[in-house]
Amino acid sequence: MALMLHPPPGARRFAVPVRVYYQDTDAGGIVFHATYLHFLERARMEWLRVLGCDASRLAAEDDCLFIVRAMRLEYLRPAVLDELLEASLAVARAGAAQLTLYQAVSGNDDCMRAEVNLTCVSASKLRLVRLPARLRAAFDDWLPAPTADPE
Amino acid sequence: MALMLHPPPGARRFAVPVRVYYQDTDAGGIVFHATYLHFLERARMEWLRVLGCDASRLAAEDDCLFIVRAMRLEYLRPAVLDELLEASLAVARAGAAQLTLYQAVSGNDDCMRAEVNLTCVSASKLRLVRLPARLRAAFDDWLPAPTADPE
Amino acid sequence: MALMLHPPPGARRFAVPVRVYYQDTDAGGIVFHATYLHFLERARMEWLRVLGCDASRLAAEDDCLFIVRAMRLEYLRPAVLDELLEASLAVARAGAAQLTLYQAVSGNDDCMRAEVNLTCVSASKLRLVRLPARLRAAFDDWLPAPTADPE
Amino acid sequence: MALMLHPPPGARRFAVPVRVYYQDTDAGGIVFHATYLHFLERARMEWLRVLGCDASRLAAEDDCLFIVRAMRLEYLRPAVLDELLEASLAVARAGAAQLTLYQAVSGNDDCMRAEVNLTCVSASKLRLVRLPARLRAAFDDWLPAPTADPE
Repeated sequence: MALMLHPPPGARRFAVPVRVYYQDTDAGGIVFHATYLHFLERARMEWLRVLGCDASRLAAEDDCLFIVRAMRLEYLRPAVLDELLEASLAVARAGAAQLTLYQAVSGNDDCMRAEVNLTCVSASKLRLVRLPARLRAAFDDWLPAPTADPE
Repeated sequence: MALMLHPPPGARRFAVPVRVYYQDTDAGGIVFHATYLHFLERARMEWLRVLGCDASRLAAEDDCLFIVRAMRLEYLRPAVLDELLEASLAVARAGAAQLTLYQAVSGNDDCMRAEVNLTCVSASKLRLVRLPARLRAAFDDWLPAPTADPE
Repeated sequence: MALMLHPPPGARRFAVPVRVYYQDTDAGGIVFHATYLHFLERARMEWLRVLGCDASRLAAEDDCLFIVRAMRLEYLRPAVLDELLEASLAVARAGAAQLTLYQAVSGNDDCMRAEVNLTCVSASKLRLVRLPARLRAAFDDWLPAPTADPE
Repeated sequence: MALMLHPPPGARRFAVPVRVYYQDTDAGGIVFHATYLHFLERARMEWLRVLGCDASRLAAEDDCLFIVRAMRLEYLRPAVLDELLEASLAVARAGAAQLTLYQAVSGNDDCMRAEVNLTCVSASKLRLVRLPARLRAAFDDWLPAPTADPE
């Protein structure tokens, strides 16, 4: 199951700092594997905020929310208590109702990398809907260079 | 990122019941995407117990633990509060220091499916080690039929 | 801050089994202190189910949910990985819109004890409402003996 | 169970910002009650860092860690998705092996307040030990005014 996930070439990167607390670790003495998904979510939600499209406003004003449809996760080395990390993202692809991000959690080197496929659904019925126009416009600047090799 | 994960043909299946509580949900009204990884871990740890190799004994007696090296996750439909689910696993492949499982969380139908690649490491130094012989022997009965198509 | 919480005299006890997984522990090698609150919630939700008043039905049919208004928590000894515990509850007091439970998480002996004060609120507006009549009736059998010393 | 927790008079206050993500909420549409304990822990660990006594160094160099021995929690109003909160602390009392903090999670007003009693234990054996001298010295500046009414 070799993944070798890599950031989309020429993509803009967005990152938030993440500190590791006891709440994030397990009895193995390292960050619990599912906790990294929490770190990745923080980066996505802060990015939406920077785009002017906070998740709570998307739900209230546009009746939509993003749900995770698929993920590929690659764990490279365990993060430990008190470590200062960074959770980052870059847009890999965007469609009418979907968004695929490359994400990573890193200290001095990468702890884990992820490809995250999100779908936009109506907040009330959880049915597939198109991305709100203002959100679509807002992340135009974040799309990878057009010469990027499509999947 | 079409995944279409499927159980290994002819594999034995192990499952534990999982009930959805408020602690497992988020403000979208559904189970939080990272919570399914907790459900999957419960199935893995109960399976180890059935094999006579509880995680705490593996750490104390064999100085080893399993860490997640990679995962592919496919979310099919959201689970909701109070729903009774099942977290299951089947062995896809086993190597000297690795184990790949097909896992799923299901109600009447599948909520999510996963391919989970685990590595055995020393509990004290987190370095790659061979699976303990008694564990290797214990899951011989769980390996897929030899005619199964190798990856 | 001596607490010395004790079960209400003569109270009926309800309990659910809880197994400790890596997800419940922290790098101290023990169950993370906030995780016990998850265990306590599981006992409360299973008790509501036994009363015929699942939390999801309370929300959908009676537009109400319980929120925690106050807790006193006393930690006695740390639980560890793979330990089989029991999360229990007994009704201490019930009012028009409130419910106070004595709860505990125990193995061979008590790991922690709690007094949990819950308030019934409308699911839509989060405003204080009276407990639904059918729920009130359902836990009549669970109230402590009338001779119990009121607080 | 009226708590009415209040900060120790004249105490120094330490606070960290906390943003609410989906991971912190539940299907009631608000922050899950146990999540506030995670917010409180972040404030405690950042305060230790400011004191020059990171939790990981306390464990590695002084073989000690803090465990929660008791808590009183008072929930005043629910926090919601995307809300920017502050988790704070002030020292209420310090003993040879114990530390009692007043803590709160607040937005424009207080969401919850807590009294948190911590005990210092050896990281290896979880037995009661005295607070390391350098830590004791470090939080001298944080003790409440000597005229504060002792419990």
